[in-house]
Amino acid sequence: MAQTERQRAGLVRTLRPRPADSPLLDLAGNDYLGLARHPEVTHGAAEAAHRWGAGATGSRLVTGSTELHALLEAELAAFCGFEAALVLSSGYAANLAAVTALTDPGTLVVSDAGNHASLIDGCRLSRGRVAVAPHADPEAVRAALTGHDGRALAVTDSVFSVDGDAAPLPELAAACRSRGAALLVDDAHGLGILGAGGRGALSAAGLAGDADVVATVTLSKSLGSQGGAVLGPARVIEHLVNTARSFIFDTGLAPAAVGGALAALRLLVREPDRAARTGRIARELHGRLTAAGLTTVRPDAAVISVRAPSPEAAVRWAADCRAAGLAVGCFRPPSVPDGISRLRLTARADLTQEQLDRAVATILATAPTG
Amino acid sequence: MAQTERQRAGLVRTLRPRPADSPLLDLAGNDYLGLARHPEVTHGAAEAAHRWGAGATGSRLVTGSTELHALLEAELAAFCGFEAALVLSSGYAANLAAVTALTDPGTLVVSDAGNHASLIDGCRLSRGRVAVAPHADPEAVRAALTGHDGRALAVTDSVFSVDGDAAPLPELAAACRSRGAALLVDDAHGLGILGAGGRGALSAAGLAGDADVVATVTLSKSLGSQGGAVLGPARVIEHLVNTARSFIFDTGLAPAAVGGALAALRLLVREPDRAARTGRIARELHGRLTAAGLTTVRPDAAVISVRAPSPEAAVRWAADCRAAGLAVGCFRPPSVPDGISRLRLTARADLTQEQLDRAVATILATAPTG
Ligand SMILES: Cc1ncc(COP(=O)(O)O)c(C=O)c1O
Ligand SMILES: Cc1ncc(COP(=O)(O)O)c(C=O)c1O
Repeated sequence: MAQTERQRAGLVRTLRPRPADSPLLDLAGNDYLGLARHPEVTHGAAEAAHRWGAGATGSRLVTGSTELHALLEAELAAFCGFEAALVLSSGYAANLAAVTALTDPGTLVVSDAGNHASLIDGCRLSRGRVAVAPHADPEAVRAALTGHDGRALAVTDSVFSVDGDAAPLPELAAACRSRGAALLVDDAHGLGILGAGGRGALSAAGLAGDADVVATVTLSKSLGSQGGAVLGPARVIEHLVNTARSFIFDTGLAPAAVGGALAALRLLVREPDRAARTGRIARELHGRLTAAGLTTVRPDAAVISVRAPSPEAAVRWAADCRAAGLAVGCFRPPSVPDGISRLRLTARADLTQEQLDRAVATILATAPTG
Repeated sequence: MAQTERQRAGLVRTLRPRPADSPLLDLAGNDYLGLARHPEVTHGAAEAAHRWGAGATGSRLVTGSTELHALLEAELAAFCGFEAALVLSSGYAANLAAVTALTDPGTLVVSDAGNHASLIDGCRLSRGRVAVAPHADPEAVRAALTGHDGRALAVTDSVFSVDGDAAPLPELAAACRSRGAALLVDDAHGLGILGAGGRGALSAAGLAGDADVVATVTLSKSLGSQGGAVLGPARVIEHLVNTARSFIFDTGLAPAAVGGALAALRLLVREPDRAARTGRIARELHGRLTAAGLTTVRPDAAVISVRAPSPEAAVRWAADCRAAGLAVGCFRPPSVPDGISRLRLTARADLTQEQLDRAVATILATAPTG
């Protein structure tokens, strides 16, 4: 779409840099556990920069692997219940790496229609044949896998980034197993919230550590930092080290991001209730907005999606919220797979009851009428 | 290639995490100006983590843009001589963003055969038609562009990452202009070394800021941090904000990485001689190794490539250097476009004469015979 058409449609995006001490109440970010600015986490990041340097100085295969990276990999794998982990510079890079490394020209990749852009780009970079399956439909995945001769892989978000609904992981795993396919799950929005103490969606589903299951996570949401990781059997991780282009040809994650994520992970281990608290807040938000008549999706983790009647209405709604002191996300075409515009709200473990009340009141007061 | 074949061929890669106080002399990293561990740079990173948080908390389009990102963008654009800049989470992501956003289904993309993996992946994600041109050959680029009706883009590294040779940018720009094509240059290995005070290859070639020229840079090499940026006309940057998937669907660069890169940039502005010093050291290294009979490529920036007779010999050579206290890069199939294995050495502005002498002596003492 040309810029002028976009402008007419109310779809032009502009960057709005925030100050360090923004007065806005934030229900838009993905810092689900409220750790990005936690003193232990920022201290972990700062200490790592001082001790290890501001950058990793090279690919993880050359000079870019520090003992700090290895420590985070070991603790993250143990926490989530996998044999091994590999840290990359972003969740995006982790998804590109996982999808491309797990596929070869003979592979059939069955990808959920609601998957995140980074999984889709991974599919497009893969040499395999890609089939898009209807959203959250294990029987469709089973059907797509039926009759394929050769390697096969089903790919899904654990919690979908726009609507916050969860994938039916046990049924998907059963469908994959019935057809000899592997399962790749992007747990970007599950880690830190789902499973015991936030161990993630794979742990919750009893699939973590299974030989035919690989997960990706991001360090940039619940862990309040930056980066991504692939979790799986040691042989899969070794294969990634040797083949994944977005790992091999990318500078290692900066030590500060590693140190921040490690501090956040240790904090979550020590304070496991943060995970459940985020989920409770999401359900309360959803319940109150639904009771007031808004069309929302029941949140399976921390993301609450609220329907807007049009892109223009969504943009106006979000702007009105902001004018009233509340930051909310606004998803509209082309960032939504189904063309439906919505507000995207996120729960955070450290929201107070007063903040929750204020958020609900603001969203209702600014809601489009009719 | 299966893991066992790789093992037999001496091609298996393993991660070797380094301690914070490695005793190795480092001629393998890309910290060309020696800034990754400079106290001003690590302080800039640590301060940013304390002030802005360990993570950006969301996409740059939602909560992930801070005033610190905007500051780095303004100063980086001004330094390199471009109208505007956009910071992404890695140089890899910047290249994916630039190539995909500058192409549409009707675009012809002419890509140098020696280009970096991230540019190649960008080409594969682009909807355009891709033609690979012979390495560093402006006439071949002109010929490939001839007769194409519609948008066209030539894509090249400024300094090629494996051999350290420079692209013929003035001739490439002339070829592009004669055919109405735009030029995209990845200046990952030029920024901080080429041009007045390290303003980069585009500045050196008098092309910075031109309406039909876009550059990408990384913050992870000369600037000692992590991240990447696209530099170009403001309308191109605005277009990227609205269309580039690896920008829109990726968490913003962590504040510590932004703060580290900004501190490094300001240090380079204040101490412009670091740029020239790196180049001088590279040329001295090259001269001495060549004089001793090794087959090397004349360095146009900071990377010196030394031929090895086989993958096994290259691996052994690098291991012998390491055993003698010197870290060098070792590039071998499949990371090299031409199948030729080599050591990859990098110059650093803060190498002392004693260190240089020691490096040369070690490389020569461990060189494969015959
Ligand atoms: C489902 C999902 N996967 C992957 C990513 C990418 O992770 P990152 O931002 O760390 O690159 C995101 C969002 O950013 C996401 O929502
Ligand atoms: C030429 C070139 N472009 C891009 C990149 C990617 O940059 P980054 O490591 O910051 O992702 C690299 C190396 O890492 C490179 O050598």
